[in-house]
Amino acid sequence: MNRFDEWYEGRTGLTLGVQEVVFSKQSPFQLVEVLHTDSWGHVLTLDGLVMLSEQDEFVYHEMLTHPALCAHPKPSQLCVIGGGDGGTIRECCKHEDVESIDWVEIDEVVIEASKACFPGLGVFDDPRASLYIEDGIKFVERQSAKYDVILIDGSDPIGPAEGLFGDDFVQACAKALKPGGIVVSQSESPWVKTFHPNMKTLYHALSSHVGNVSPYLCSIPLYPTGTWSMMMASNEVDPQSSYAFDSAEQFCESHPELKYFSADVFRASQALPPFVAALFQSSAS
Amino acid sequence: MNRFDEWYEGRTGLTLGVQEVVFSKQSPFQLVEVLHTDSWGHVLTLDGLVMLSEQDEFVYHEMLTHPALCAHPKPSQLCVIGGGDGGTIRECCKHEDVESIDWVEIDEVVIEASKACFPGLGVFDDPRASLYIEDGIKFVERQSAKYDVILIDGSDPIGPAEGLFGDDFVQACAKALKPGGIVVSQSESPWVKTFHPNMKTLYHALSSHVGNVSPYLCSIPLYPTGTWSMMMASNEVDPQSSYAFDSAEQFCESHPELKYFSADVFRASQALPPFVAALFQSSAS
Repeated sequence: MNRFDEWYEGRTGLTLGVQEVVFSKQSPFQLVEVLHTDSWGHVLTLDGLVMLSEQDEFVYHEMLTHPALCAHPKPSQLCVIGGGDGGTIRECCKHEDVESIDWVEIDEVVIEASKACFPGLGVFDDPRASLYIEDGIKFVERQSAKYDVILIDGSDPIGPAEGLFGDDFVQACAKALKPGGIVVSQSESPWVKTFHPNMKTLYHALSSHVGNVSPYLCSIPLYPTGTWSMMMASNEVDPQSSYAFDSAEQFCESHPELKYFSADVFRASQALPPFVAALFQSSAS
Repeated sequence: MNRFDEWYEGRTGLTLGVQEVVFSKQSPFQLVEVLHTDSWGHVLTLDGLVMLSEQDEFVYHEMLTHPALCAHPKPSQLCVIGGGDGGTIRECCKHEDVESIDWVEIDEVVIEASKACFPGLGVFDDPRASLYIEDGIKFVERQSAKYDVILIDGSDPIGPAEGLFGDDFVQACAKALKPGGIVVSQSESPWVKTFHPNMKTLYHALSSHVGNVSPYLCSIPLYPTGTWSMMMASNEVDPQSSYAFDSAEQFCESHPELKYFSADVFRASQALPPFVAALFQSSAS
């Protein structure tokens, strides 16, 4: 059995016993691999960082998608940046209000690996979704007042996803949003100090260009420290409104297959421990 | 630099770069070590399992202690089982209602290591706390209707702490409680399938002998999967009552040093993702 290591916060690491490397291809952007592990099933890595496993991917995909899509009164036009595995599209397609999804993935090899190694995980054939193999940053820069919700499903802010945490990209997202639209982004772990500068940059950019920022947390065991943050920003939609929670409750009633998201979990995810709140407060100034 | 590995859920592991082993002693019960790491400061391990680090211990100690001590209307007489590092006693002593704490630690070497290597972490000199070096199970069996709150601050249910998850011990705790008292125990990670049998046994025992069980969750990066559960049980006290949250709010106002616990976090910690709730529902039957 081989050993996969991912390091973070100095020499802290996640280690996985690897039974087999089932996919390995260097794309123009990154090394795309799928490892078979004994405990988490297949695991997708990009440049040696875990993106998802069969066993825990539901948390990331449910939590990136449903908070915004429940909070928005009518999420019709969506844009998904990244997420080549198709899991975010799968969750988006559960919302009846969704009419179209512009899905922009920079790396075709991620899609190839997902289709080959994670059958059933991603949704690739919903007629509402149009896939563009392109740099999401350049794609969004061309759009104007088009989307109700933009979901930024990028990898860590090193390599091809670095710009997804930057001020220019967030400004382009703000321009691409319809009035009252929402931007959501994954935003790393609050426990890892080396992530803090990127988290603060993103928070500040969302706050300046989009509106009120609501960070929220979820539990993802194969991401560094096991606790992950996401940020939702909008100048109109309030993710703490009773509309948002009622809508979440209604949505969950018709989706008993959800394993992480619920109206209570949605509300709870926004309760930040003081040490996390302090991180964002200091970045607001 | 050496490497410390802790394995769980098959061959999933946490790895820490160790600069120095600053304490190492085989007690009659376990191997007690303190490792100095670059990212988490000193780390206490028992038989090779991480118990705490200087950087993240606040979560465990705040969350084991304050939910119950805020929910109980007058927590005067306490019992703490385990917790030789003194962190739980430190948090208990912040509550003005506390008059006495019977503190029972089986392994004197844990206390020796903590005093030597974690100065300031534990409280060892509060006159309200009486320390007994003894098996907590035998100690509790001798008590009757004595405590408002019993906090079970044990290590994983292998080695000396195994009995702390068992039916006999929980029954003894129930007898040792005053009417309306509360039992709290750490209860492992819901993500780790090999922990599930112990979690279910504990849930069932608390439910049978004490009363309503409220599992809750918190984020502890150096514990397996980074998400940890605790269980609170009482036949009278409701941890979701407005009294409990108001009391938590008042407590936190006078303790601005708290880094994890808040009234909102207390409420949020009880919102279980459906996959976690299902685990406990199946153990109730």
